[in-house]
This record gives sequence, C-alpha cells and structure tokens, in this order.
Amino acid sequence: MKSGIKVTVWNEFRHEKKNEAVKRVYPDGMHKVIAAGIEKLGGVAARTATLDEPEHGLTDAVLKETDVLIWWGHAAHSEVKDEIVKKVQKRVLEGMGLIVLHSGHFSKIFKALMGTNCSLKWREVAEKERLWNVAPAHPITQGIGDYIELPNTEMYGERFDIPEPDELIFISWFEGGEVFRSGCCWNRGHGRVFYFRPGHETYPIYHNQQIIKVIYNACKWAAPRIFIEDKCPNINTPLEKIAPKSADFGKAGIVQG
Amino acid sequence: MKSGIKVTVWNEFRHEKKNEAVKRVYPDGMHKVIAAGIEKLGGVAARTATLDEPEHGLTDAVLKETDVLIWWGHAAHSEVKDEIVKKVQKRVLEGMGLIVLHSGHFSKIFKALMGTNCSLKWREVAEKERLWNVAPAHPITQGIGDYIELPNTEMYGERFDIPEPDELIFISWFEGGEVFRSGCCWNRGHGRVFYFRPGHETYPIYHNQQIIKVIYNACKWAAPRIFIEDKCPNINTPLEKIAPKSADFGKAGIVQG
Amino acid sequence: MKSGIKVTVWNEFRHEKKNEAVKRVYPDGMHKVIAAGIEKLGGVAARTATLDEPEHGLTDAVLKETDVLIWWGHAAHSEVKDEIVKKVQKRVLEGMGLIVLHSGHFSKIFKALMGTNCSLKWREVAEKERLWNVAPAHPITQGIGDYIELPNTEMYGERFDIPEPDELIFISWFEGGEVFRSGCCWNRGHGRVFYFRPGHETYPIYHNQQIIKVIYNACKWAAPRIFIEDKCPNINTPLEKIAPKSADFGKAGIVQG
Amino acid sequence: MKSGIKVTVWNEFRHEKKNEAVKRVYPDGMHKVIAAGIEKLGGVAARTATLDEPEHGLTDAVLKETDVLIWWGHAAHSEVKDEIVKKVQKRVLEGMGLIVLHSGHFSKIFKALMGTNCSLKWREVAEKERLWNVAPAHPITQGIGDYIELPNTEMYGERFDIPEPDELIFISWFEGGEVFRSGCCWNRGHGRVFYFRPGHETYPIYHNQQIIKVIYNACKWAAPRIFIEDKCPNINTPLEKIAPKSADFGKAGIVQG
Repeated sequence: MKSGIKVTVWNEFRHEKKNEAVKRVYPDGMHKVIAAGIEKLGGVAARTATLDEPEHGLTDAVLKETDVLIWWGHAAHSEVKDEIVKKVQKRVLEGMGLIVLHSGHFSKIFKALMGTNCSLKWREVAEKERLWNVAPAHPITQGIGDYIELPNTEMYGERFDIPEPDELIFISWFEGGEVFRSGCCWNRGHGRVFYFRPGHETYPIYHNQQIIKVIYNACKWAAPRIFIEDKCPNINTPLEKIAPKSADFGKAGIVQG
Repeated sequence: MKSGIKVTVWNEFRHEKKNEAVKRVYPDGMHKVIAAGIEKLGGVAARTATLDEPEHGLTDAVLKETDVLIWWGHAAHSEVKDEIVKKVQKRVLEGMGLIVLHSGHFSKIFKALMGTNCSLKWREVAEKERLWNVAPAHPITQGIGDYIELPNTEMYGERFDIPEPDELIFISWFEGGEVFRSGCCWNRGHGRVFYFRPGHETYPIYHNQQIIKVIYNACKWAAPRIFIEDKCPNINTPLEKIAPKSADFGKAGIVQG
Repeated sequence: MKSGIKVTVWNEFRHEKKNEAVKRVYPDGMHKVIAAGIEKLGGVAARTATLDEPEHGLTDAVLKETDVLIWWGHAAHSEVKDEIVKKVQKRVLEGMGLIVLHSGHFSKIFKALMGTNCSLKWREVAEKERLWNVAPAHPITQGIGDYIELPNTEMYGERFDIPEPDELIFISWFEGGEVFRSGCCWNRGHGRVFYFRPGHETYPIYHNQQIIKVIYNACKWAAPRIFIEDKCPNINTPLEKIAPKSADFGKAGIVQG
Repeated sequence: MKSGIKVTVWNEFRHEKKNEAVKRVYPDGMHKVIAAGIEKLGGVAARTATLDEPEHGLTDAVLKETDVLIWWGHAAHSEVKDEIVKKVQKRVLEGMGLIVLHSGHFSKIFKALMGTNCSLKWREVAEKERLWNVAPAHPITQGIGDYIELPNTEMYGERFDIPEPDELIFISWFEGGEVFRSGCCWNRGHGRVFYFRPGHETYPIYHNQQIIKVIYNACKWAAPRIFIEDKCPNINTPLEKIAPKSADFGKAGIVQG
C-alpha cells in the first residue's frame, strides 16, 4: 500500500479521448502524467478520478481518503453534478487541500469557493510565457528559480476576477503583452486552495518537470494538518456569569415590556 | 424624487408579522426602521424589499437602480430563490455594494460570496456586547468612538467560518466570555461586501443610533464607483508581435508534429 | 487661498539642477510638473518641498497642513535626515496619506513604513512598459482603461521585497521580459500608503496625463478622514467588574505567594 | 550536539535579577523556562541570549546559527543597540523566523518590521483572559482547543497599532471588558513573524503548557525553508529582444532630443 500524502488527481478526461492531437500529448490522460510525476518526487500517494466514472470518481470513500485534490476541467464544467461539487466544497472547508489547474478557473468548485466569476482574458497563439516567482521563500516555490519559462502556451490575461489572494506567488509575463496572477493561495474554511495557471490539453505543459515540481510542492503545502467538521452550535451555558437582566430578553420572541 | 446613494433594504419580514413580541419592536418591519434611519443622516435614498413580494422585491429594475443592498434574513433563508440569489451575486460582482446584517451570515447570498460555511457559535441570554473599533480611521467607523455598547444581545462567538477579511474593523466582547469578528470588509468582483453582526428580531438593535450610523457609513463606503459587466474575452490579436512558432500550436487541438 | 485636499509634492530635486538632459525634461523640477498636473484636475491644493530647503521643506507646520505627501527621491536618499523621516512616519501613522513614486522605493520613509528591504531588479534600456489595471473598480484606477502604455521606461522587475500589498492594483509588463507589482496599497497606522512605479528623471513620465490621473486619484484615495495621535494608555479602571483575585497579582512586581 | 530547529530565546533579563517577586516566578530568567519548555516537546534545539551579554548575545555567529528567534523585552527596549536591531531585521528578511512575545510589542525589532507604532491599551489588575482560537487548522494552533484560559494576566486592549495581520489566529477576551488580537502572523521579506500576546514578568504565563505549546508550534511554523540574501541587481541584458528605440533613452541622463 502506498504511503504519504493522499492525492487524488481529477481530470475531465474528454479531450484525450476525442482528439487525436491531445491523445498524442497525453495518451492515457493528463491525470496519469500528473499523478506519476508527483509520485516520483516521493512522499505522495496519488490516485486518479475522472468525470465519466460513477460519481465522477469522487465517492464519499474517495473524498474521505483524500488529503489533496487536484482539479483539471475545461469543456465539460457544466456536466459536473452540483451534489458532487457540494461534497468537494464541504471537504475543502473541513481541511482537504485543493489545487485548481489552468482552465479549472471556470470549474464549479473553484467558482463556489471563490464566490466570484473567475473570468479572464485568453488567447491561443502558442506564445511564450514566463512565470515569475514573487515568493521565493514560500513552500510552493522551493526548488524553482527566479522563473519558469514555457515556450508555447495559451495566454490568460488580467483582469482575473478572483478575491485578492492571501498569497500571490507567481506572476506571468506573456509574449503578446499581457500579465497574469498565475499562482494564488487562499485559505477557505479549514482547507487551503492553490490556483496554478499552467496547463492545456495540446501544449505538453504537464511534461515539464518544473511545473510538476510546483504541483508537488503545492500538495505538500495544502495537505491538511487536521479535518474539522462544520457546526453552528448553540452554546447555552456561558463561560462567564451573566448579570441578571431587567427583562426576559433571552427567551426567543419575548421582548422587554 | 429622492437623490443620493440608492439603497435597497431587504428584509425577510416574517418575524414581524407572526410574532407579537417582534411586532412591538418593529411594527412595520425592521427594514422600515433601517431605511428611515439611514435616510435621516442624509445623502441616501432608501427603498425596501421583502421576501414575500414578487421576485422577493428584487426585480431586475430594482437591482439596476440599487447602489447598495442591505440584507437581513433569518428563518427563511431557504425560501430565497436561487435565481434571485444568482442575480444579486452577479450585481455585487459588477459593483453593487452589499451589507449583510446579523443572522444574514447564513443567507444564501453571503455564503455564495464567501465560499465558506459562515457558521459560528450562538447563545440567547440577553447578554451585554461591546463592539471594539479596531480601525478608527476607516470610513465605516467615522463618528463612532472607541466602542459601541449594547446592553442586551444574542451572542455570536468564534470561530466564524469566513475568509480572512480584507479589513477587520470591529471585534465584539461578550459578557458570557466569547469574542467575534463583528465588522468585516471584503472586495468581491467589483463590489464591496460588509458584514455587520449587530441585530436581532427582539432586541431593539436597529433603534440604536450608533448602529444606524455604522450602517449608513457602510452604505457610503460600499457605494460603487463604477459598474462593470463580467466578460471572459478571447483577445485574438496580441498587443505585441508574436515570434513565429515552430508548429501550429495556436490552433486548437493541433500539437507539434 | 487654495482649497481642497492639501498635497505636498516632495522631490529630491538634484538631477534637475545638475544634469542638462534632466533639465530639458523637467526645467523647474518634476515636483512642479506633478503639482501643476494634479491641481489642474481640481479639488487639490498642491505645494512643493525639496531636499535642500531647511528641514527638507517638511517643517512641522507644513506636515500639519498636509493631507497627502507625494515622495520622489533617488540619488540622495541617505541625505534625508532621520529626524525628518521620523516626523513624516509619525504623521502617516496619524492619518496623512503617502504616495511613493518610482525610485522612492528605496527612500528611508518607504522602507521605514514597510519594514522590508524594498529591493528589486532594474535595467535602463528605454524599454516599453504596460501597466495592467487589475482593480478597475478601485478609486485609484477610475478613468484609466485596461492598461497604461509607456513607450520608454526604466525596468523594475520582481521580486520586489515588500509586504504583501493590502490591494494590488497595477501589474507591469516589460518589453524585456519582466513583470512588476507597480501599484500597491497599504494601510499603516491611520494612514494610507500607495506605491506607484512609473517615473524617472530622464523619461518624461510625469508629462503623461494618465500617470498624473493615477497620482491624482491616489491623492483622493489617501486623503485622511481623521487624524489620530498615537497613545499607549494605561486604562486603570476596567469597564467591567473584576472578580476578586486570590493574591495581589495586580501590583507590579508582586506575585502569588 | 543538539539537532532540530535552531531556536534562540532572547530575554531582556533584568526584572528577574532585580525584583524578588519576578525571581520567584523565573529564578533563572524566563528565557530558560521557555527554552526548556519548547525543547522538551522535541525537534528543537534552543539556546538563549540576553541584553547584558556582549552584542546582547546576538553575534553574527549566533544569528547565522538561528532559525527562529524568540524575543521578550520590556523595560529596556531603548538599550538594545540599533546596530543589533538592524542585523536581526536583516536576518529576518533573509528568512529567519521571529516570535515576539507580550511586551515585545514595543521592542525596536518589532516596530522596525511592522513600520507602525505598535501601541495598545493596558491594565494590570490580574484579570482573567481567554484567547480564542480563530484559526483551528493553522499550524500554530495544533493541539490547542477552542481557547486558552489564563486566570491572571495583564490586559492589552485594542486598538493595537499594527498592519492588518496576514493571518489572525488568536483573539483575546478580557474580564475587564476589552478584546485584543493576540496571535498575529506576518510575512516580512523571506521571514515569518509571529506576535503572541501572553506573558509577563510576574504572572507565571510561561509555566503554562498551552502557552509553551503555541510558542513551540510557532517555532516550527516560522522555521525557514531557505535563506536568501538581499540584492537589488542591475539586469543589463534583457531576457527578450528590445525593439530599437528612437533615441538613446537607455543611457543615464540622456533624453530624447
């Protein structure tokens, strides 16, 4: 049995089955490449899950056994069932880490956790991208130098409609003239969320070992220290003595006469 | 015609109709008290809307004419239609201000914008609360001194499951021994969101003029400078010249051969 | 007498006196160009102050009459007297706005308020810069479109050693391949601080009306709502009754026997 | 030789020598109690340093060998030499963790890193304090329950003049009616800073094992992943080709004719 941080790599896994070009880059799906890539770096046990599996591969049992969920979706965001999104969101808020990749910016789960539109500008002309490391002491950027250079990428440009990140760790420069907040960290509930821009179905981004290293580091960063179930308790008994009140304000629906 | 910041005060308006005790405190509903209170301070034109009106009183026309929406709900959060919540969220992300009061922490709109459970601890024993002003230079706290003291309140205690506020401006002390982040600001999309804890159906909180002053200040703070519609545009033409690529990466689904 | 927000534009004012090239761009000093530029937009009363004036032009009287201080320095940061820096810092913490321009990133006052090195990468090859507006609803970006383009600038590149901005509003793209957080907002004490990257002694940046507009907007944003003097008071009398203690812990230096 | 995170516990160490009451609580100085307490929890190698040692015990060699510095000072902040403060600040910005305790809020090093006055309200009547854990998934609060209760403490009340914390993890409730942000995290440069309120010379706070546990957790949280020396490099050669410019803007002091 594998040990280490339990990672589930979720992939829409449609492009790879339908499109010859994508198949050539990711014959078994990009989830397999990501899972193998991060496992190789050690201390991580990765499984995969895909859209067309029952419950999208994200059963209660799987979620319970997942420390960090990696999410890649693109063309079929709307096919992800709301009830599964709710379960994933619940699990993140309890402590599970979530790493959202590239076009996952428009996934239901990311939008639900951010509360914003998560929209952006985009262009596909295979342009060069350089991701500048603006937080070189952050756990996620360890082993990455000043920047990562990708020769051919889809462009994502600002304004990216997200809440101000708790920590901004990568900013992209694009050949065509745009910039983008490409590595963003948030705490949500008891969980940690990392958005990482690189990735695409036809550019071989997840074969790049610097990209894999960032995702791997992010798994370690996002791994929960604790899971805490949500509750909204009525604490009837105060910790301190309450002075007598002039009327029975405390009883629901009763006001001072 | 009224001029100034266009505020819509939304109230669930059920307690006031069903419960004699509540009716005594707010005979016409708490929305009327809040609307009159902030209008009296000048520069604000307030209308009201309630759950049982068609479209909960939040038609497209009303939302279009609203700069800042104030929200009070409690027992009927689940009756607020998802499609209306979506419209309100869309409008906040375009720039409309939103002020969420007290039990509105569990409203659909607040949870949708926060992405978290928004749960907390609570107790009703009419205890004393003191809201400490931790941001005395903030627009929302102008005219408020070191603190606001409320003789009888429902307690809300930490942990409050919210994203770290962009600005924390009030922290409550409770007689029974708890604390709470009672005044919290966030930017979401192009809009501003303020959560303000005080309020209840049986305690006469909205008859307190310091509380009204805070809500009034928050309206001014949250009033939009601009409304911007969401878009996710394909920017086909780069601003800068793109160097020729070795293959037709740019075409969707075509990879380097 | 001029009315409106009282702005003092501080300039090192050395380059303009010594260097013919600089003199051609800013014959009377760049402070004069900035002051005139923002005054022209209305509602601002601008005065100027320079390094070689007594007390660097920043007497107690001037600071007392200043709502927002704009700071440009470059070659003579070390000549700014520590006692003046302390006074300016004190005034910012009391509520005065501070706008730090370009090479002011290395000024004593900016470093004192940030607590960090404020270092960065730089290059002077007259390259193109495009400042992307990532906060189009922010008061400082009103009237600015998607971006500001500057044909010839000195490059500043990441990593910029600053505390995570409270709000990041501009990110620069540079022709040579770098990015930079070019518009950054912080609250410090009761004051607001804005760092704005554009500017240089030989590039005519402050003749650009979009740049002036941003500085003008920043003056309005940073103008104080209130000035509050610092204190660290001993509050002898508690607001609440303190239960009797088993020993005289309260007396300094006396412990439970 | 000890192994683990290298912690240096710095103490002013004056009260303990001069005052019988303090001596009874901390016969060897509170630094000894803290150092022993965190070492006992494992994985930490703690040494101590005090004000009256040469260079305050913080020689270059000691700082070089320190992952996390804990700071307690009170009556003699002004005696800490500016040159030592500069060295400590430099080391924090390079990556060293810093934990500032209690009255250290007014230490030169904390004020230098915050850029603010770090002032607060205070009272000594041995009142009860309850530190509410508002970030139960944070590394620093692991093993701590909902709150820590201290029967007798000096009160610190808001407003605490600090930059908005990157993460707020404890809020204190005081018997006398105040609240305080008692556990605050910031990133500064490449280092992490944690302010933790509890502590005093006559109340036996550092004999409380929950307090020691928090300090211990904070050492693990603040331990650097990397040390990075500050630089502000001139990057002469751009990564991308720069288009020819119409004039020699690039040469210092030469402007377009």
